[in-house]
Amino acid sequence: MTSLYRLGYAPMQTELTVAQAERLILKTVPVWAGERAPLPSAAGRVLRESIRAERDLPPYNRATMDGIALRWKSWQSGRRAFPLEGTQSAGQAAATLMDPHAAWRIATGAPIPNGADAVVPVEYMRDAGKGVEIDSGYRPKRGQFIHKRGSDRRAGALLLKAGQRIGGVEMALLSANGVANPRVARAPRIALISTGNELVGLGGRPQPWQIRSSNGPAMTALLSRHGYAGIRALHAPDDPGVLADRIDYALSQSDVLILSGGVSKGAKDYVPGVLAELGVAPVLHRVRQRPGFPLWFGMRGGIPVFGLPGNPVSSLVCLRRYVIPALDKAQGARRAYPETAVLAEAVMFKPRLTWFLPVRLAANKTGRLIAHPRQTNTSGDFASLARTDGFAQLRANRSRFPIGCAARVFRWNG
Amino acid sequence: MTSLYRLGYAPMQTELTVAQAERLILKTVPVWAGERAPLPSAAGRVLRESIRAERDLPPYNRATMDGIALRWKSWQSGRRAFPLEGTQSAGQAAATLMDPHAAWRIATGAPIPNGADAVVPVEYMRDAGKGVEIDSGYRPKRGQFIHKRGSDRRAGALLLKAGQRIGGVEMALLSANGVANPRVARAPRIALISTGNELVGLGGRPQPWQIRSSNGPAMTALLSRHGYAGIRALHAPDDPGVLADRIDYALSQSDVLILSGGVSKGAKDYVPGVLAELGVAPVLHRVRQRPGFPLWFGMRGGIPVFGLPGNPVSSLVCLRRYVIPALDKAQGARRAYPETAVLAEAVMFKPRLTWFLPVRLAANKTGRLIAHPRQTNTSGDFASLARTDGFAQLRANRSRFPIGCAARVFRWNG
Repeated sequence: MTSLYRLGYAPMQTELTVAQAERLILKTVPVWAGERAPLPSAAGRVLRESIRAERDLPPYNRATMDGIALRWKSWQSGRRAFPLEGTQSAGQAAATLMDPHAAWRIATGAPIPNGADAVVPVEYMRDAGKGVEIDSGYRPKRGQFIHKRGSDRRAGALLLKAGQRIGGVEMALLSANGVANPRVARAPRIALISTGNELVGLGGRPQPWQIRSSNGPAMTALLSRHGYAGIRALHAPDDPGVLADRIDYALSQSDVLILSGGVSKGAKDYVPGVLAELGVAPVLHRVRQRPGFPLWFGMRGGIPVFGLPGNPVSSLVCLRRYVIPALDKAQGARRAYPETAVLAEAVMFKPRLTWFLPVRLAANKTGRLIAHPRQTNTSGDFASLARTDGFAQLRANRSRFPIGCAARVFRWNG
Repeated sequence: MTSLYRLGYAPMQTELTVAQAERLILKTVPVWAGERAPLPSAAGRVLRESIRAERDLPPYNRATMDGIALRWKSWQSGRRAFPLEGTQSAGQAAATLMDPHAAWRIATGAPIPNGADAVVPVEYMRDAGKGVEIDSGYRPKRGQFIHKRGSDRRAGALLLKAGQRIGGVEMALLSANGVANPRVARAPRIALISTGNELVGLGGRPQPWQIRSSNGPAMTALLSRHGYAGIRALHAPDDPGVLADRIDYALSQSDVLILSGGVSKGAKDYVPGVLAELGVAPVLHRVRQRPGFPLWFGMRGGIPVFGLPGNPVSSLVCLRRYVIPALDKAQGARRAYPETAVLAEAVMFKPRLTWFLPVRLAANKTGRLIAHPRQTNTSGDFASLARTDGFAQLRANRSRFPIGCAARVFRWNG
């Protein structure tokens, strides 16, 4: 192991718990550098700088109703008829009330004319001569329907913290503050290699002993739901030479490498050996979980390498449980809050392992998230994943999980 | 209103409740035709056909452990040493056990050799001569570690129903069943027009009475989080002629038109009038909600047209609450389950309207979703949306919402 120490990695850990494996992976993965990106293309990316208010929010005293703007004292003195000096629209500089007993017509969003300090909505008045007359029963308050300059935020106030993924809300704030080129996480180049001689592509006709390759497209689709695009998916047969060649090439072209298959204990499980030969330092192998026991993780010069078990359920579960959080960390994203749900029915699980149980989620009327288990025969039963929303994480060393038992849940897409 | 009747629409409804508005919009929006798309590009789109198993799942008796495959009766008869006839790998046709008291080495995923009916994992044996010797204390069961052909699903069984959005799980099933060109919803062409003279673009320097345009980028980003890309965002000033021209062009190029601004009661709120002139039949105007009271919705020849209020909070809330569910329905997507959460603190709201209250969500350890309110000054306070996950829908005609009160919640991104 001397060479691995020299690379700065502790010796490989094996048969870790889920919590240990998660911590070790998240600790090991580096945070990648950010870059500046023009605003439209920054949608969906992780913000890497804090954003402060460019100016006061709102930037001017802003009408929040359509109606008239007047001087409240003038109404208070008993006046109900107000001649109109003009119309104040949004996008115009604030006018000035020349006659303190007059008013301006005003539209929602327009600046309050200088001298006015209340807005009376259009519903409470009628036209009268060259102005309007306010309903006798209506009692405006001073300052009403005025969104005061700076009342939401002062110029310089913190609006967005680094680490948020840019969705609609964040984009609104970036645009409104003129942040044309925010600093964001770079989109990683991700290579996927699915291994296995038994795999046939979409075009081919599988023999009875063959199965169609599905991990490449499935993992690509899941990654894209989490904001990761630009993925190169390759296939490699169970041949150490070809495998080494593909992996070596993928490592030279990528920021992350994800393999599926070849990490178990079979004679043709060449992946860990080939990775070691290529200088990928092993960090962990095997996690006390089902599915996904053979999970492998290592690093080469800042490039995280994940070896996921090849069956489709294991690879999707491990991708969602470990790889996506690791990518999010590498992008500098803040961690999502953990979700929990209660089981809609009792389940049993004998092995002394953490169990990732596919579930369908629904909310009841009291705000509780309910997880409906989809029991599967084996970890290879991926047809049963259809119409599941994610999986529950049921803890190790416990075989009975009663109805109503709370567990962490992971959504496939959330 | 005669012409609208002729178009097949009832007269315009006004001041509806939220539930009435939602129902009316979802009822009015058509379901668009689907199309076939090659599998990789189908990721993220709504499946428009049901998918059945191409063949038995699994397609062969499949080993679920690395070890040896043997005839169980041979072990039961007392034999512990088994000569090996060869290695059965994944991707090879099933071999045949020639000697009933011999065994084959086998890898996870490989077909069980004919004649064998149990797998003994590699952990429970040691090499002995030309074969292996099973540990004396180990007791295999007949059929163990064999994932039987057809035990998950029989050929022809329903795997996926139409209406699911294609994520990782769905992609795994489509690929594994050789569905190279699934029928999916067509990606709609969406036009966004933000209106208002007060708006300045990203490049410009706003005057004190101007604000930067943010609704176009914000709505585009929110739509893209829900799987809607290919959006054209335009701006129009508060000028009926220019507005009519932009809207007319957008209608000719789009499947959906979304406007923000210009639907309130101000003198410059030209949108409803211009839409009527262009033959867009009004379906509803104004909903008993805050924010978003002035919401407008109409149809022209199968094209839904949404007029959202212009302030950033209102437009994002209305987009998430009405437009995205309408787009999902038009794509033939199954409806998402309603989410509920409980309030983390008491809130008060006097107006007799439904209140959409921005919240930050967190789950407690008993599976309850907790909504932490972010109170805002007015519906224009969009800085307070930062770090919210969505909004709670608090019902009308009630002013006190105590701590622990359950409410529906809508996630910005979910």
